[in-house]
Amino acid sequence: MQLEVVVRRLELEQLYTDYVHCLDTDQLERWPEFFTEDCFYRITSAENYEADMPLGLIHATSRNMLKDRVSALREANIYEPQRYRHLVSSIKIVEERESAVDMMANFLVVRTMQEGDMILFAAGRYLDQVTFADGAWKFARKDVVLDSCQIDTLLAIPI
Amino acid sequence: MQLEVVVRRLELEQLYTDYVHCLDTDQLERWPEFFTEDCFYRITSAENYEADMPLGLIHATSRNMLKDRVSALREANIYEPQRYRHLVSSIKIVEERESAVDMMANFLVVRTMQEGDMILFAAGRYLDQVTFADGAWKFARKDVVLDSCQIDTLLAIPI
Amino acid sequence: MQLEVVVRRLELEQLYTDYVHCLDTDQLERWPEFFTEDCFYRITSAENYEADMPLGLIHATSRNMLKDRVSALREANIYEPQRYRHLVSSIKIVEERESAVDMMANFLVVRTMQEGDMILFAAGRYLDQVTFADGAWKFARKDVVLDSCQIDTLLAIPI
Repeated sequence: MQLEVVVRRLELEQLYTDYVHCLDTDQLERWPEFFTEDCFYRITSAENYEADMPLGLIHATSRNMLKDRVSALREANIYEPQRYRHLVSSIKIVEERESAVDMMANFLVVRTMQEGDMILFAAGRYLDQVTFADGAWKFARKDVVLDSCQIDTLLAIPI
Repeated sequence: MQLEVVVRRLELEQLYTDYVHCLDTDQLERWPEFFTEDCFYRITSAENYEADMPLGLIHATSRNMLKDRVSALREANIYEPQRYRHLVSSIKIVEERESAVDMMANFLVVRTMQEGDMILFAAGRYLDQVTFADGAWKFARKDVVLDSCQIDTLLAIPI
Repeated sequence: MQLEVVVRRLELEQLYTDYVHCLDTDQLERWPEFFTEDCFYRITSAENYEADMPLGLIHATSRNMLKDRVSALREANIYEPQRYRHLVSSIKIVEERESAVDMMANFLVVRTMQEGDMILFAAGRYLDQVTFADGAWKFARKDVVLDSCQIDTLLAIPI
């Protein structure tokens, strides 16, 4: 392994780190910047994913759609009493293709309510395509594959 | 620290990453390949571990025994409605000996039932001996030390 | 990125790894050694942190105060039937200043009682200042910012 390979791996892991902190500090307006302009993003269940169902609970085919989602979230949730915490581990470079790097990682999201109640909110894996665009690594595609088949209908936040 | 040291560390972390994804994607048939032929594998409780009790809930002294376990699991669980998700962090190289590298890591396993219920299934640490064999890093020994003294009797999956 | 930068990043991540294993193996007497002599340590809630409230539930302004805390814990908890497991991820170097490195990381602490009950004990983030002192990286400041506003009054262990 060359130094360049090591550095690229650390940079790719850094992308996940920055992504997570953006979400957990509720800086949603910065969230679309982690994606390419013509990105694909969705949240789906493992069952749907394995059955090759194209759509998910949340589904976007461009960065602008992600921005719209953030706007909608901000209008809907004037007062947000809960906090989310992402734990991400086992980040793996699956394949380096010419146009993108296929990656996967495990995640767990814990939600803490204002009164202190904590719950396991979501667990699953990211299946991503990462590409270098505009001077930074960005998600060209992100499939958030939840272990659960049933999804909290209140789920509206990005994961 | 030399580049070789950095690369080895990343390779060793990679072993844990691959191990976790193998389990979480239910590719159990590939699981024994993460171990040496004469490996030692067990799942035990922290209490038993500290009392130096030699056996555990699950106990294997060769890769073939791990293969047998997978076969038994496949026969028993024709239909498996739950999903497991491993979070592994704080992977540490404890000591580099001539024949093996002593490592430890923390893990948390979350189980999601088909209906969507999520539980903390297991937490604890891996205490491992890793060696380079047949062109890859493999576990020569893996002690899965659970924080809990009482173990779900349904526990059958590898951790 | 140069090799030195890679190595420093791994060393800084290693600090968190060692810190976590020190706590989870209940080697509390070693815990103050992860801090500088004139360190600042506190556990506070996200709400208090954002409101810029100076104090927290636990608050120390020197390594000696941390040692006193450990002594108090040892006297109070003659028998400790629970185990804690820290999961730490998304460790980020926020800024490298001349005197210290600003870092942040996400954590989740799971508590397992002797009878086997597991709970989400705490989630949140570390906001740290790390400095090189006495031949090792140490925490000059550590703010443990819990997602919860209400904190278990039994909380006494370091996080």
